[in-house]
Amino acid sequence: MNFQSGTTSQQAYETLRRRFARMGQIRNALGILGWDKDTMMPAGASDSRAESIATLAVLSHELMTAPDMADLLERAQPPEDAMAQANLHEMRRQHAHAAAVPADLVEAASRAASRCEMAWRTARQNSDFASLLPELETVLSRTREIAAAKAEALGLSPYDALLDQYDAGTRQADIDPVFTELAHELPDLIATALEHQKSLPAPLPLTGPFPVAAQENLGRETMRALGFDMQRGRLDVSLHPFCGGAEDDVRITTRYEEDDCINALMGIVHETGHALYEQGLPTAWRAQPVGGARGMSLHESQSLLMEMQVCRSRPFMEWMAPRLRAAFGGASGDPAWSADNLHRLVTRVRPGFIRVDADEITYPAHILVRYEMETALVAGRMKLRDLPEAFNARIHDLLGLKVPEDRLGCLQDIHWPSGSWGYFPTYTLGAIIAAQLREAAERDTPNLMSAIAGGDFAPLLGWLRPRIHARASGASTPQIVRDATGAAPNTGPYLRHLRQRYCGQG
Amino acid sequence: MNFQSGTTSQQAYETLRRRFARMGQIRNALGILGWDKDTMMPAGASDSRAESIATLAVLSHELMTAPDMADLLERAQPPEDAMAQANLHEMRRQHAHAAAVPADLVEAASRAASRCEMAWRTARQNSDFASLLPELETVLSRTREIAAAKAEALGLSPYDALLDQYDAGTRQADIDPVFTELAHELPDLIATALEHQKSLPAPLPLTGPFPVAAQENLGRETMRALGFDMQRGRLDVSLHPFCGGAEDDVRITTRYEEDDCINALMGIVHETGHALYEQGLPTAWRAQPVGGARGMSLHESQSLLMEMQVCRSRPFMEWMAPRLRAAFGGASGDPAWSADNLHRLVTRVRPGFIRVDADEITYPAHILVRYEMETALVAGRMKLRDLPEAFNARIHDLLGLKVPEDRLGCLQDIHWPSGSWGYFPTYTLGAIIAAQLREAAERDTPNLMSAIAGGDFAPLLGWLRPRIHARASGASTPQIVRDATGAAPNTGPYLRHLRQRYCGQG
Repeated sequence: MNFQSGTTSQQAYETLRRRFARMGQIRNALGILGWDKDTMMPAGASDSRAESIATLAVLSHELMTAPDMADLLERAQPPEDAMAQANLHEMRRQHAHAAAVPADLVEAASRAASRCEMAWRTARQNSDFASLLPELETVLSRTREIAAAKAEALGLSPYDALLDQYDAGTRQADIDPVFTELAHELPDLIATALEHQKSLPAPLPLTGPFPVAAQENLGRETMRALGFDMQRGRLDVSLHPFCGGAEDDVRITTRYEEDDCINALMGIVHETGHALYEQGLPTAWRAQPVGGARGMSLHESQSLLMEMQVCRSRPFMEWMAPRLRAAFGGASGDPAWSADNLHRLVTRVRPGFIRVDADEITYPAHILVRYEMETALVAGRMKLRDLPEAFNARIHDLLGLKVPEDRLGCLQDIHWPSGSWGYFPTYTLGAIIAAQLREAAERDTPNLMSAIAGGDFAPLLGWLRPRIHARASGASTPQIVRDATGAAPNTGPYLRHLRQRYCGQG
Repeated sequence: MNFQSGTTSQQAYETLRRRFARMGQIRNALGILGWDKDTMMPAGASDSRAESIATLAVLSHELMTAPDMADLLERAQPPEDAMAQANLHEMRRQHAHAAAVPADLVEAASRAASRCEMAWRTARQNSDFASLLPELETVLSRTREIAAAKAEALGLSPYDALLDQYDAGTRQADIDPVFTELAHELPDLIATALEHQKSLPAPLPLTGPFPVAAQENLGRETMRALGFDMQRGRLDVSLHPFCGGAEDDVRITTRYEEDDCINALMGIVHETGHALYEQGLPTAWRAQPVGGARGMSLHESQSLLMEMQVCRSRPFMEWMAPRLRAAFGGASGDPAWSADNLHRLVTRVRPGFIRVDADEITYPAHILVRYEMETALVAGRMKLRDLPEAFNARIHDLLGLKVPEDRLGCLQDIHWPSGSWGYFPTYTLGAIIAAQLREAAERDTPNLMSAIAGGDFAPLLGWLRPRIHARASGASTPQIVRDATGAAPNTGPYLRHLRQRYCGQG
């Protein structure tokens, strides 16, 4: 494509394309620096690395908010193709977010978050919410100022402006009815699941040790089977598993424990779901806004599709059971290593306090509580000092648990101290979409799950590639889901899935 | 320091300080991206990584050549301290280099080098100089254009302008007499060394295998003993050993072979010498031009001081011998693992064709030949098509070897194809300085070598830190050497060292 001889508005688009490509390359660099920070960096380099990362972030922000950007974005006329049009749309959205917030507020918010994160580490350890309150008040104030600024610029409510940072186009008005329905269904659903679980044989424990090298080998084999391209990515170790890296260089991490062989594996398949999305983004739109993943709900749908819908399924365990047994020297015929037992192990229901340790069916309860709290806090309908009581009350309503200390309650997550308000709902929206995609993929691909039982994941990936991955940010999340499944995002498949897997229904 | 309330010229300096700090942080980011490329990056990411690296390099170049830079550099008045004055001096020098070359020439040179490097890999494999000639002509033309542009801007000869890129202030007029002297001395020196070697017992080979894990452990132990701070650096594996990374994050690499336990270790101590320099740079001048290493000669002096002067010495082997033997399960009393035998192994003289495999005493011959060739080529006194014949003739003069094919001659190094003209002499200048520093350190620290024999490297590092490392780019290389040793850089200590170690003289 060459717009050199085109009109002014085409040249404006071309100028934007080049500038956003630069920002894209800075983002790639930041992706590698961030990965390195969490996997390779020696401890003494943390201040220096923070400076390098901050410098690149500021350079990118300056490119985005250059004085002539608004004019270019207004004048730009992309070619007559849907992706190019969507690219301009996404450029405008990203620019609106960046330009809405004055630089000094960005910096104040970033400093407040850094201080609050530090305070949070101590406060969580000591289960001392009062000690965190002043710092968290500051973070919430800055967050509300950012929300107000973006709300005005984008014509959204403050909370919707925050949501839009993580999930373009997702609105509170879409989430509220869905989460209200879930809040209504969940307590019964969990009770039924616990009842049903009693009717099953108790899962047999696996006996270790489970050497790290064997876990890693099996993890790599599984990644490759799911479709991860090792020529364009890596698997490493970090304290908290993540999917990061850069274009053509998608890097996932996990953490191994010698006395457990399931957690690291499930972590790997979860991050592999994220990674397959990144590896499937369209190469023609590299480094452009439209070429990036659509948002966190769809991203989480891909990780949960792989982990929850696929790898915690009974058919998957058909394939995995002999591999697990061989990797860790289990006796042939030992019922602990049977697919049935392994499936029971990875679908055990046990209500608990900690979100990241929650099973599939109690997990949304944790999200609902956080969503209720943060919408009220951002709207100013609730005071931060009232958070612990309100949080614990709703945990009790939904899970029947009495939170004994804030360490196990509202102090457990880093999201709020670090300024990530509006992020939590994407986890459960992702779970809902994952179920809907799996149902549609099975409908379109009759032997999908039996292929998986035979270790053939290509039909699934072949279904996802054009329908989800290759669409990148070319349409809204609801549109992509509708085009892929024939229906708007809805809780039907998700509730059916939970009832079927955990309640023995259907 | 706060210049906000100062005069305009102080504010100009402060503005420059902030801009150069940004460039310093981009350099840190590039250091990690470069390290990652050679140690961690999956193969499929190479194009994408090249884009990210190019983008950061262009951003840095744009900061350096911003329209108001020349004016700021002219007006700037730093505080009355020598390092700040030197900082401005170094800012001006770096700016002059960057501003001298038009952007399209920078790009043309970079493209020519990329193409030529690719052609070189094939040409070297096939020993086919003719196939490389067109691409190498282009690289040389672009290099001569850059040299001419910088020569005019800096008031230097073209070759001096190239040299100055790698080694600020080093001039051909300084090198010529030194290298002429070496060219005169070397053939006899090598002949004498080979004669002397015949009078010694033949070194006994070490019997392997030498497991990589044991080599790595010993390498780390040695690094730490030499003074490497593992909290601010790493050791990894790459195809070609290097020292890279970023401030507070100095990363060295080596390559292990299971059938040899000496090469990787000597690679590690060489790179540790580079790394100790970087780790010893003054923290107060982080990310500023004056805070960087002085140049490649001094850098190479630090690696060769550690490798050649220290770790291939008989006293070092006193300390190392029992460690090597223990690491690889040698029998106690086996003479192969004695300090004497190990010393003979690491000081063996064997004239050969390949520079990077050369021993200490024949190495400078390889450099002299390359220096003669590249000065003649840059000056236009020689045609590239005549290079192989001229190269081989001089190898024969200095080493008595007849180069059988260009793969083993002028095609062996990547420097010329990649556009690094003016780099070669720094290797031998570094070797000369290393000997001079060792002699001075021994004079100032009477038991230096016996401390080393006992594994105590702190006196040596204590001597180097204030005299070399902490001075960073605060003075010229000759000035730093003069202040450290009491004499201008000269070949006396180097020739004494070679005669003593290899000819049994003195």
